[in-house]
Amino acid sequence: MGVVIPLESGQDTGSSVKPLVELTAGDIERVNHLILSKTGSQVEMIPEVAKHLIDSGGKRLRPMLTLAAAHMCGYQGPHHITLAATHTATLLHDDVVDESDMRRGKQSARMVWGNQASVLVGDFLLGQAFRMMVDAGSMEALDVLSTASTVIAEGEVMQLSAAQSMETTEDDYLAVIRCKTAALFSAACEVGPVLAESNKPVRDAFRSYGTNLGLAFQLIDDALDYGGSKADLGKNVGDDFYEGKITLPVLLAYRRGDEEERAFWREAMETDSSDSQALSKAMDLLAKHGSIGDTVARARHYGEMARDALAPLPECPRKQALLSVVGFCISRVS
Amino acid sequence: MGVVIPLESGQDTGSSVKPLVELTAGDIERVNHLILSKTGSQVEMIPEVAKHLIDSGGKRLRPMLTLAAAHMCGYQGPHHITLAATHTATLLHDDVVDESDMRRGKQSARMVWGNQASVLVGDFLLGQAFRMMVDAGSMEALDVLSTASTVIAEGEVMQLSAAQSMETTEDDYLAVIRCKTAALFSAACEVGPVLAESNKPVRDAFRSYGTNLGLAFQLIDDALDYGGSKADLGKNVGDDFYEGKITLPVLLAYRRGDEEERAFWREAMETDSSDSQALSKAMDLLAKHGSIGDTVARARHYGEMARDALAPLPECPRKQALLSVVGFCISRVS
Repeated sequence: MGVVIPLESGQDTGSSVKPLVELTAGDIERVNHLILSKTGSQVEMIPEVAKHLIDSGGKRLRPMLTLAAAHMCGYQGPHHITLAATHTATLLHDDVVDESDMRRGKQSARMVWGNQASVLVGDFLLGQAFRMMVDAGSMEALDVLSTASTVIAEGEVMQLSAAQSMETTEDDYLAVIRCKTAALFSAACEVGPVLAESNKPVRDAFRSYGTNLGLAFQLIDDALDYGGSKADLGKNVGDDFYEGKITLPVLLAYRRGDEEERAFWREAMETDSSDSQALSKAMDLLAKHGSIGDTVARARHYGEMARDALAPLPECPRKQALLSVVGFCISRVS
Repeated sequence: MGVVIPLESGQDTGSSVKPLVELTAGDIERVNHLILSKTGSQVEMIPEVAKHLIDSGGKRLRPMLTLAAAHMCGYQGPHHITLAATHTATLLHDDVVDESDMRRGKQSARMVWGNQASVLVGDFLLGQAFRMMVDAGSMEALDVLSTASTVIAEGEVMQLSAAQSMETTEDDYLAVIRCKTAALFSAACEVGPVLAESNKPVRDAFRSYGTNLGLAFQLIDDALDYGGSKADLGKNVGDDFYEGKITLPVLLAYRRGDEEERAFWREAMETDSSDSQALSKAMDLLAKHGSIGDTVARARHYGEMARDALAPLPECPRKQALLSVVGFCISRVS
């Protein structure tokens, strides 16, 4: 079962990640090289985990955003490579927190080496990256990244408590993904102009682009979890459902449902008993209430905001690539 | 010149304020009576200003929201009347801060009696309302309202500083109207279930409904300022433009425009020199970039969120009336 998401946008700016991949290919090589060189540790597991991560992450979006943003702002130095590398470290932590089995179609590091190793190697990579930034003297970039870490931790805690209830409002759910996902995208984009010492409106534009791209990205991920195929998405259909992870499609169906339907959702999301029959019923309810289509419509709104955030910046291939990524995130098809 | 805003919604819940007006007519009488009785001051100007306000405010939305929400939650006591009355006081302050000449087609109190008198009479009304609430012992309702006051003040200050620049991002603008307008709507809706001692999910639902309705309402107001007629809107076309008030349609056109257009907007919004020729050029640029239509599309997104916020609550005429108000706010036609 799949869902095709049409791209409806007043601003036709394409919908592909290819231009961004091509424009940053050389830099990404340098990022990977840096990670491998810095993980030449005595502890054998560290380079192994790092290599696995590099091999499995074909199209990692956040490092590419950092690289493209830095170049677009005219940055000539070497530190954007370091900053892009830090995002690799955060991926390890993401997987543990999200309990992912797969990352882009390959087994996630935590499935191969376990949670503890993934967290610790992530810490090691992060520590290395922070040390390099301190050496490089980019205090402002450090500030952006450490603020993002705080916000993300806040989001995780928020999700563990209030938001992990079927009674969560859409506003509260948005607040969580704003912290969890959007803050990372936002930091990835903002460090570019920070390195380049761009003025405030340019920094603001990139931060706003990153935040709204992150929101759109997460909402589409939420939608695809109930409509994507394993190969395309790099994770299993229904993962969120089986894990009892409450996302927007479910929240909308719950809010719009009758008492019997709500009882089903509470049972399904709050206990470990869900099977494929339950998933099938869940899919029917999502379809009945149009919750997947409306989640995509919500994502499209944030996508439009992301595009308008970049609008004032001068035209160039990198700007076109970043605009095209918005369409790509929204039009990902299963 | 006018702009007709079609209602495009997956959830057809009507688009009229009439049901709400009819359901709250009796209570609104009591609110007006209360205000007049409490303004029987020695100071002659106070009852005069209060009477002017009551006469000019045919369809004041926020007091009606409070009254409907309280009833919907099964509240039987008398305090919702008091709470609805406090919103009348805030209208006086709104006018001064916004420098409005008109309120719903009549001259605003500040134009008749001046800024100072409006602020002071507003303070008097607010003071009276707060005293009644203290007497009534509704500390939680007081808490909601006083928190809202703080948030609103924050929003005003934010608008005076950062947001009052053409470089403002859409995110920052939303943060301002979230404080300035949405917080008032949100408080107006939340005090209903607070009085009725409803449980948290119900309070959250009303708060979220109010916030998103407020955002939609403000964005449509922003759009109508460049497309409404004096009689329908109760204010003059181009008011925001002549006052240099930076709103979303302008921000979008600015961000999407070229260097020459941006220079025009900076000149027009940051100096006092704008005339009807400048307004006409502004309207052309707004049309060129589709900024009014996209402002309405953004408003529709928040309207959808408002509807979904109320979705879990049991069906009843008041719920239908509140849903219909969302459509009304968005489909206001010039």
